[in-house]
Amino acid sequence: MAKRNTIDVSVSPRGSLETLSQREVQQLRETGSGSVYTLFRQCALAILNTGTHSDNAKTILEAYEDFEVRIHQQDRGIRLELLNAPADAFVDGHMIASTREMLFSALRDIVYTQSELDNARIDLESSQGITDYVFHLLRNARTLRAGVQPKMVVCWGGHSISTEEYKYTKKVGHELGLRGMDICTGCGPGVMKGPMKGATIAHAKQRNVEGRYLGLTEPGIIAAEAPNPIVNELVILPDIEKRLEAFVRVGHGIVVFPGGAGTAEEFLYLLGILMHPENRDLPFPLILTGPRSATAFLEQLHAFIGATLGEPAQRCYTMIIDDPAEVARQMTAGLEQVKQFRRERNDAFHFNWLLKIEEGFQHPFDPTHANMASLRLNRDLPPHELAANLRRAFSGIVAGNVKDKGIRLIEQHGPYLISGDPAIMKPLDELLQAFVEQHRMKLPGGAAYVPCYRVVS
Amino acid sequence: MAKRNTIDVSVSPRGSLETLSQREVQQLRETGSGSVYTLFRQCALAILNTGTHSDNAKTILEAYEDFEVRIHQQDRGIRLELLNAPADAFVDGHMIASTREMLFSALRDIVYTQSELDNARIDLESSQGITDYVFHLLRNARTLRAGVQPKMVVCWGGHSISTEEYKYTKKVGHELGLRGMDICTGCGPGVMKGPMKGATIAHAKQRNVEGRYLGLTEPGIIAAEAPNPIVNELVILPDIEKRLEAFVRVGHGIVVFPGGAGTAEEFLYLLGILMHPENRDLPFPLILTGPRSATAFLEQLHAFIGATLGEPAQRCYTMIIDDPAEVARQMTAGLEQVKQFRRERNDAFHFNWLLKIEEGFQHPFDPTHANMASLRLNRDLPPHELAANLRRAFSGIVAGNVKDKGIRLIEQHGPYLISGDPAIMKPLDELLQAFVEQHRMKLPGGAAYVPCYRVVS
Amino acid sequence: MAKRNTIDVSVSPRGSLETLSQREVQQLRETGSGSVYTLFRQCALAILNTGTHSDNAKTILEAYEDFEVRIHQQDRGIRLELLNAPADAFVDGHMIASTREMLFSALRDIVYTQSELDNARIDLESSQGITDYVFHLLRNARTLRAGVQPKMVVCWGGHSISTEEYKYTKKVGHELGLRGMDICTGCGPGVMKGPMKGATIAHAKQRNVEGRYLGLTEPGIIAAEAPNPIVNELVILPDIEKRLEAFVRVGHGIVVFPGGAGTAEEFLYLLGILMHPENRDLPFPLILTGPRSATAFLEQLHAFIGATLGEPAQRCYTMIIDDPAEVARQMTAGLEQVKQFRRERNDAFHFNWLLKIEEGFQHPFDPTHANMASLRLNRDLPPHELAANLRRAFSGIVAGNVKDKGIRLIEQHGPYLISGDPAIMKPLDELLQAFVEQHRMKLPGGAAYVPCYRVVS
Amino acid sequence: MAKRNTIDVSVSPRGSLETLSQREVQQLRETGSGSVYTLFRQCALAILNTGTHSDNAKTILEAYEDFEVRIHQQDRGIRLELLNAPADAFVDGHMIASTREMLFSALRDIVYTQSELDNARIDLESSQGITDYVFHLLRNARTLRAGVQPKMVVCWGGHSISTEEYKYTKKVGHELGLRGMDICTGCGPGVMKGPMKGATIAHAKQRNVEGRYLGLTEPGIIAAEAPNPIVNELVILPDIEKRLEAFVRVGHGIVVFPGGAGTAEEFLYLLGILMHPENRDLPFPLILTGPRSATAFLEQLHAFIGATLGEPAQRCYTMIIDDPAEVARQMTAGLEQVKQFRRERNDAFHFNWLLKIEEGFQHPFDPTHANMASLRLNRDLPPHELAANLRRAFSGIVAGNVKDKGIRLIEQHGPYLISGDPAIMKPLDELLQAFVEQHRMKLPGGAAYVPCYRVVS
Repeated sequence: MAKRNTIDVSVSPRGSLETLSQREVQQLRETGSGSVYTLFRQCALAILNTGTHSDNAKTILEAYEDFEVRIHQQDRGIRLELLNAPADAFVDGHMIASTREMLFSALRDIVYTQSELDNARIDLESSQGITDYVFHLLRNARTLRAGVQPKMVVCWGGHSISTEEYKYTKKVGHELGLRGMDICTGCGPGVMKGPMKGATIAHAKQRNVEGRYLGLTEPGIIAAEAPNPIVNELVILPDIEKRLEAFVRVGHGIVVFPGGAGTAEEFLYLLGILMHPENRDLPFPLILTGPRSATAFLEQLHAFIGATLGEPAQRCYTMIIDDPAEVARQMTAGLEQVKQFRRERNDAFHFNWLLKIEEGFQHPFDPTHANMASLRLNRDLPPHELAANLRRAFSGIVAGNVKDKGIRLIEQHGPYLISGDPAIMKPLDELLQAFVEQHRMKLPGGAAYVPCYRVVS
Repeated sequence: MAKRNTIDVSVSPRGSLETLSQREVQQLRETGSGSVYTLFRQCALAILNTGTHSDNAKTILEAYEDFEVRIHQQDRGIRLELLNAPADAFVDGHMIASTREMLFSALRDIVYTQSELDNARIDLESSQGITDYVFHLLRNARTLRAGVQPKMVVCWGGHSISTEEYKYTKKVGHELGLRGMDICTGCGPGVMKGPMKGATIAHAKQRNVEGRYLGLTEPGIIAAEAPNPIVNELVILPDIEKRLEAFVRVGHGIVVFPGGAGTAEEFLYLLGILMHPENRDLPFPLILTGPRSATAFLEQLHAFIGATLGEPAQRCYTMIIDDPAEVARQMTAGLEQVKQFRRERNDAFHFNWLLKIEEGFQHPFDPTHANMASLRLNRDLPPHELAANLRRAFSGIVAGNVKDKGIRLIEQHGPYLISGDPAIMKPLDELLQAFVEQHRMKLPGGAAYVPCYRVVS
Repeated sequence: MAKRNTIDVSVSPRGSLETLSQREVQQLRETGSGSVYTLFRQCALAILNTGTHSDNAKTILEAYEDFEVRIHQQDRGIRLELLNAPADAFVDGHMIASTREMLFSALRDIVYTQSELDNARIDLESSQGITDYVFHLLRNARTLRAGVQPKMVVCWGGHSISTEEYKYTKKVGHELGLRGMDICTGCGPGVMKGPMKGATIAHAKQRNVEGRYLGLTEPGIIAAEAPNPIVNELVILPDIEKRLEAFVRVGHGIVVFPGGAGTAEEFLYLLGILMHPENRDLPFPLILTGPRSATAFLEQLHAFIGATLGEPAQRCYTMIIDDPAEVARQMTAGLEQVKQFRRERNDAFHFNWLLKIEEGFQHPFDPTHANMASLRLNRDLPPHELAANLRRAFSGIVAGNVKDKGIRLIEQHGPYLISGDPAIMKPLDELLQAFVEQHRMKLPGGAAYVPCYRVVS
Repeated sequence: MAKRNTIDVSVSPRGSLETLSQREVQQLRETGSGSVYTLFRQCALAILNTGTHSDNAKTILEAYEDFEVRIHQQDRGIRLELLNAPADAFVDGHMIASTREMLFSALRDIVYTQSELDNARIDLESSQGITDYVFHLLRNARTLRAGVQPKMVVCWGGHSISTEEYKYTKKVGHELGLRGMDICTGCGPGVMKGPMKGATIAHAKQRNVEGRYLGLTEPGIIAAEAPNPIVNELVILPDIEKRLEAFVRVGHGIVVFPGGAGTAEEFLYLLGILMHPENRDLPFPLILTGPRSATAFLEQLHAFIGATLGEPAQRCYTMIIDDPAEVARQMTAGLEQVKQFRRERNDAFHFNWLLKIEEGFQHPFDPTHANMASLRLNRDLPPHELAANLRRAFSGIVAGNVKDKGIRLIEQHGPYLISGDPAIMKPLDELLQAFVEQHRMKLPGGAAYVPCYRVVS
């Protein structure tokens, strides 16, 4: 990526960062030089890059090496000074409103995360404590709204998909939007953008000006998947596990579209949770869908689930091929069940407290070569534990593909080695192979995909 | 067009039609059987066809021959019963909100038009009276909003344009929207839709939830150019001349994109007005623009204006090739001048009272073969009168191409004959020939274009 | 009344008068010199006198003899220039917002009334036509709101009452307001103000920021009963009969408090309507109430109704002495019946179309000496006709007491003579005598009351 | 006070308490039995007593001895169950909206206060830490709004004043409200209510629906001064010093009306701050005012300030006798200076960060007999320190008069003894004597005032 046009500018916040105490402003200024700075700078750069299509964090960071954010205390609060910022985020010198919003969302989340961690009351050692932490982060971002009917549909899938698949996600988003549903995604391009775009048009047609387009991301991935500009609520969770928990606690139903390793990771994470005995009676609409052209992919993924986790796992979702309206109709019916269930159990509409998530799913998985190599992938594990480990395997592959740290590890030590029960390893290898063949691992603008892993059975 | 899926449904109004007097409900019911019925049924059908792409009124009317609208007095007001309505306008049996809004906009405008005409105070014989009439129709539709800064940009151009041209109109709309401007078009597909779509995304990015997408249409053309679903304000003016006057009084600036005979008609109408001596000092930003691929078209139209109306006419507009941001920047600058001018002259922001429109521009032109044949197209006319007559020539051609009445006339009597000064006729013939060659006259889905006119020099 | 402080100022409108056609501005300017001017000037003066306590129109007009209103066309619309205006309506030179609103409400209503009268479609000769006219005036004033539940309670009673009675009206208004009801009155002081004041506080307690305080007045009485400043919707109906019709069509229930001849007039008007055979089954909550100190008045009025119109008339209302909460509870129950009834009959919530009002109630009664003398007041009339004539008798007395024209007639020709059946005349004379003794005829600040009538049996 | 009508009811919250984490709900439930319970129960009872006029905490607590609040976790959050609650807070069994709001404000503040105190970051040992704490409490209550122009006027004065004085406070509130100012008081009756009532009417006249009526109170005084129902924002600060700091940091100007010991305390607190050398150039509009009948009181207080703190203290305020409009005009001018000053210094509009408050003013004064006896009241102290000690003396007297704890102390140990420099003691004794004579110490409904102090010179 060549050096781009840049701009120097100074912006002040809207919203919750308008009223800060002197102590808080001081904390913020300290982040301007302290250890949090690198993190904030990286997120800011990703947000300012909204609309460009590189998903390689390293590339973006290198293209704007001299980008700086300075936090000033003045004019009754804080002001951000941006130096050498990407010019695309500005119109005639003025920052686009959504970009400004996201920039301060990033500041808010990063500082709040830090400040909550300093807070003695947060107990990251217990499952309950982690769930409370995720709740607090979401509430601080004003994402939780009491009394609103269940209608937040999470869409998962690849950020780099075919044109036909992208159009299909738009159609599904359109049908969801026509029926009043909101969209939550990982907030990058591809499946993260298509359903939001479709829903935007549908909400306009239905004169719904309160449509929500919620993007949940995390610092390690935001640079690779810059929030698309439709996102009107952005939350940066501290790591990938908190983000996954946020998805399943805040979403009322989930649609899985074609994608690559990241999509498989998300799908396995959710299946692992839904298969937990305590969640057996909890309604959670989950739909696996794609256009006719993605039939092969969908069927292969479906078969992989059957081969590894078995038929009960397959019963957790519905597979719908090439029928956007049917996806929306089934989701509508599913949300109705969710509403009934939460009413009966007195659970909140805005946060799925009743969903049991085992602690193993909540702790960050550090994709070192050692951790990847020691993952247990055997059929004698209970299905929800096997799902958890498969999820970790895919998580590592995603890190190796697009995350700053993962890329560097692979550069240093070569591909990850993954091993286990051949009855698992074989379908896994075939699925990954198919991902490569279907170009679901290929990076846009990049050369042919070089796998960051090796399956050893 | 094959017979489509249909639905029977009953809908009640929102907005100004909610509080009606008993006399008014009675009037409305009478339209259910009276002479206005055909008109309303035709508009309703066009609105329910939103999203389909036929622009041949006859075709649509024939596809839903058994469609009926019945007006019932019940439940504290009126209720519309639709029989055999196109199913596309419904989601799971519920009418899409924008469709319902437009349906009642049509009812409102058609009934109000009728009722104003019955009103002794309306004087359609004087220029001032016609302008007042247009004002009343727009105000009744709640289109005029006091105190709002000038920012309504009218976009003119073809409803049937190339993909590249369509994308360009979206980009221009996007740049206008990023700078806070609203969009007004003739509310069909093509150029009528692209800028609105681009502006919708831009307004979302700028968190502008008050974006206006104003569609001005008239009964003769609505069937051929069904309002696109982004339109959030629809006004049906009684005829093409009132609609043109509405465009230039309510718009603060105009962008002309590539198009066919209709676009030429609109462009000539406006040039004829702007060249009037009394309008000499009145700022009215007018930009002729298109993508690089439309260079030939733009230059040919520019040359035609030079050859027929002369260089002063060319000075009324700026031509910008392939630069959406520049179009938006120049429009922004132009609107600033409009604001200053109206402030100084104490003119309203919401209606351009000071623009002089000669009575000749205000009266409907009936495109009979006799009227077409007797148009004076000579260089010895004052330029603004020549512009008026050229405008009428194009108006007739549009009628012959897409309007119900025009199509029937051509079927009966063969092509219109147009004659005049060879210095005018030759460029005119060449321009029309180019339109045909560039497929700007071709109807989508139809066969090759058969001209509805013959130029006789 | 001594000459007061005055101020010269220029104000521009908000609301519906912001977007006017040139023809309409011209019409308005003409009112600046034409016959409507006197009317508008008088209303304007009354509105600017809001808060003062004279209820003698002559007195106010004389105190500001040199007051002038000029209507200017400028600055994209109209502007009012006020010369020698009462200074009380201004704060540090700025007109109080509610005063400005009412001033332009007056202009709106007076001009619209005039313009509707010029309109060929208005048929003031038929009962239906008059009702439609009232509907149009109210709708033009944006008083009619579709879909809002029945909750508009009309409060009738004297503008000149004892402190104890005034406090009681505040308490009743407070209880009505606590239960979500809105208030409509004749918009002057006394009973016209107390319930609004009580409801304002109650609405604030219930965090109801949409409370409506609707004042209905007419040009002949506005000078005597200047709208109190709580009124947030003011409508000036053209005459006393239109105003009475507006009360009963727009109100969902009515509370009658102690008062004088005007109150008796309103009460008899409504009883005359409710006793009409066609209205027998129509629910219309009507409560006669006052504090303990008003027991004598209430019982005398109740007895008068019994003696003249009979027991069926008494069944049309409930009498509640000294129990504000009970008044509010019964009204709540009554409104529930109104809601059920209109739902079943598909009548509008915002206008009582089903209420039958005989033409005799709709035509203005001109209180000349001849008309007063020829009123038939005999027991052989059907009760609703007798009620109508008694209503006219009281109407004449009100005119003779406080209206400009009436006062002048009495000055010229001496008191009105009223005659009829002794069985009617005796209770009437006694009631009027009691009004005088209870100071219900006395004008505030004035000398002892000199009756403007003589009862001849 | 006799046993009153009571009611059992269950209410759920609106606003910030709607989205709670499971941990927070648990904390709240624990307050239902823990040490915070007594505090919350006492505040709840005071709020439910809104509108009654006892200002003796003990009396109220005894009248509803069997009142209970239970906190239940259900229905997606918390629900309060009230047993034996005062019936006056309900309309036909439904809690009045403002009461419900205040009840949950109390819960919010008491729990938040507790939770912030548990928070390691709060440093109540430093002046800066205390100010930050006050800021956090106010922000958590959503009291701080960025970007709003300075217009919050604090009104201080007695809760038990003469009718004439009360009417005067209404008039001043009316004039302030007409000029767009908001009102902040200690939220009880008397001066705490009058200005709010006047401003409510004025805001209605000016069609200002965003008027703020901010009540700042503290647990020790809320029972004695139940929030009046006009208060639409209630904040319970943890103690009297935090409350005083909240007044001067959130108010943009202050009006002091006649009152008793509490008013003197507040006045001296502010003078002590304003006389601090670092605050010399800081504009802070302060007006001492009352009706003509209060002239003696105002002049005596003015003289006392002169005699003890000297003429520089007198220059910190303006004294205006019997001229409400002048008070409002001077406040308007003062607020303009505040705005300019904060703009120049980049200070926030919503919180007066630049005001220097010495730590001595920030720490609670515990009115034990020992502390009262050891107060240094000598002329050789710097004026702002002398002011601080005089403030403490009055604070103790207030506690002895109306606060639960103070009353019990006096019951046990007899009156406080206050001693010091005769040049201070003599004017102090005279002022207190005058307060008693003017019935400014008398409790409503109570017997003659028995002083809770003795001045020993």
